[in-house]
Amino acid sequence: MKSSGIDRRALLSSLAALPAFAGSPLPALAQAKADAPSAPPLASWNDGAAKQAILEFVRATTDPASPKFVPSEERIACFDQDGTLWVEKPMYTQVLYCLESVPGVVARQPELGRAEPFKTVLSGDREAIARLSLHDLEKILVATLTGVSVEAFGAEVGDWLRAAKNPRWSRAYTDLTYQPMQEVLRYMRDSGFRTYIVTGGGQDFARVYAQRTYGIPPEQVVGTMGGTTLRYDTNGEPQLIKDPRLLLNDDSAGKPEGIHLMIGRRPVAAFGNSDGDREMLEYTGAGGGARLMMLVMHDDAQREYAYGPARGLPESKVGRFSQQLFDEAKAKGWTVISMKDDWNRVFDL
Amino acid sequence: MKSSGIDRRALLSSLAALPAFAGSPLPALAQAKADAPSAPPLASWNDGAAKQAILEFVRATTDPASPKFVPSEERIACFDQDGTLWVEKPMYTQVLYCLESVPGVVARQPELGRAEPFKTVLSGDREAIARLSLHDLEKILVATLTGVSVEAFGAEVGDWLRAAKNPRWSRAYTDLTYQPMQEVLRYMRDSGFRTYIVTGGGQDFARVYAQRTYGIPPEQVVGTMGGTTLRYDTNGEPQLIKDPRLLLNDDSAGKPEGIHLMIGRRPVAAFGNSDGDREMLEYTGAGGGARLMMLVMHDDAQREYAYGPARGLPESKVGRFSQQLFDEAKAKGWTVISMKDDWNRVFDL
Repeated sequence: MKSSGIDRRALLSSLAALPAFAGSPLPALAQAKADAPSAPPLASWNDGAAKQAILEFVRATTDPASPKFVPSEERIACFDQDGTLWVEKPMYTQVLYCLESVPGVVARQPELGRAEPFKTVLSGDREAIARLSLHDLEKILVATLTGVSVEAFGAEVGDWLRAAKNPRWSRAYTDLTYQPMQEVLRYMRDSGFRTYIVTGGGQDFARVYAQRTYGIPPEQVVGTMGGTTLRYDTNGEPQLIKDPRLLLNDDSAGKPEGIHLMIGRRPVAAFGNSDGDREMLEYTGAGGGARLMMLVMHDDAQREYAYGPARGLPESKVGRFSQQLFDEAKAKGWTVISMKDDWNRVFDL
Repeated sequence: MKSSGIDRRALLSSLAALPAFAGSPLPALAQAKADAPSAPPLASWNDGAAKQAILEFVRATTDPASPKFVPSEERIACFDQDGTLWVEKPMYTQVLYCLESVPGVVARQPELGRAEPFKTVLSGDREAIARLSLHDLEKILVATLTGVSVEAFGAEVGDWLRAAKNPRWSRAYTDLTYQPMQEVLRYMRDSGFRTYIVTGGGQDFARVYAQRTYGIPPEQVVGTMGGTTLRYDTNGEPQLIKDPRLLLNDDSAGKPEGIHLMIGRRPVAAFGNSDGDREMLEYTGAGGGARLMMLVMHDDAQREYAYGPARGLPESKVGRFSQQLFDEAKAKGWTVISMKDDWNRVFDL
């Protein structure tokens, strides 16, 4: 797989901080909170500029008498996933999936277990894993994300998501979504918006949980796209096999490119949390009429994490939010959401 | 641009049959007939197996008491475009667009006009144009489909579609849609299906007219996909520029691959008219539960065209329907629609 804009070496080295790989089974994937009974909109948001920006944007774009009214077919809102809708620390969930899938892959292809980098991953030695090269990580991604049918891949990811637990909260990764953002998704959908995930992670990976976790159907998931190849099985039935060709790296400039490819319309609202979301917000903001651009800032070490390095927050390898991005947000009128000040609740646990 | 599965040499050589390139302006793109007042479903279809197959499929999949009931989110119906929804003879509309766009491209880049293949295209000598090589045609596609912003491209295609006329009917290409298929689109949407175009033509090209012509929004158009590149203009505004990288050739095996990429679900119904639709119908048919696979057969030389070569119809370079495809349809229970026998009306002119 072609190298992507995501700094995979940084990802790997942050692995050393993880207490354990394997989790114990949970009964089911977290159900979409979007299906919860209706509540006052944005109840987990404190009164303030961020909450007000959302309410005012939705009012202005949905009131037919408003000069900023947007017809329902144009109401497209795009949401980054890792770090914007759910926890991305200590590591992107998909990278954990890839590493934890190595034993299963080796069971099917035992010769891999005698070769690097699979031997190192199987050793469980996190310090050694953190020293793997980018080239090694790409071998792991190819071995664990490709070579299977799209249906088998979906089933494997679903099984893993039901079993795996985030080490800090001992909860399924799909439980660790931000309740305030779930409320934004629901509120915007209730107001006639279509909500899309636009993630640097794998499109097929996010599609496995997006419906149940966020109420977002597979056709509204835009992510890093790999090719598939149609093959016929021994019964002559056609199957789509995931293959290692990278079609689009849906990060940074790839986000507007992916949005155009998949949707063909410019969004009117975009939510992110890192430098990788900059171009998506710029592209959204460059359209005419009402626009809403928001960035989640992780400044709440107690309830979640604090990382930047904007505003002196600790430097982060995953989900980096630079001072330059912060300055651009201020200059362009984007809203920076302070997790600490704007959210009265982070999770619904 | 990488060579595609479409036989572009055959396309070019069929150009010699065209009486003229330029058309005179028409006031507006054909409005979506999907917005017409409601009528009995499938009024332009004669009673028979084809009409019955559609009615029975919709009944079985939408009646909650039916064992074949399909939940609304899974009601995905995919339609090939050229030859299935509108006339593809004597040449795919998009190829005509590319050839007729050469003068405009040369006006912006005069040096091109002194070089081949542009000199030949500008000469208007259709015999010479028909002799252009595949490599030359690809130069024309790159020059006329890329290097502009997605917005500028949409505006240029829209202008052309308003002006250009099909030589046989002297009508806009967007007027030459099959009324019976417009009725299928409308009937299925009224029954809770989402209708997608799945075309071997360019995705961005079909998006220009799909909403107005068929009531199909841009995000429901799957086609041959080229890359875009985000660039910043002199005002620092981001723009998506169409570039020559081919991401996916949405023809033959590329159709199921494109469907997975763009929708992430297997369709329950698929409509085509040529060998390039075979894999889409096979992929659709290989899913469980109720399925509808249909092929439009052009056997009506008087009202439209007759071409095959299945069943002894004249051999065709564009939209080839082979005897092998016909035999597979019969063996697998796909429905072949006879334009002559199944449709009491072809156009709504």
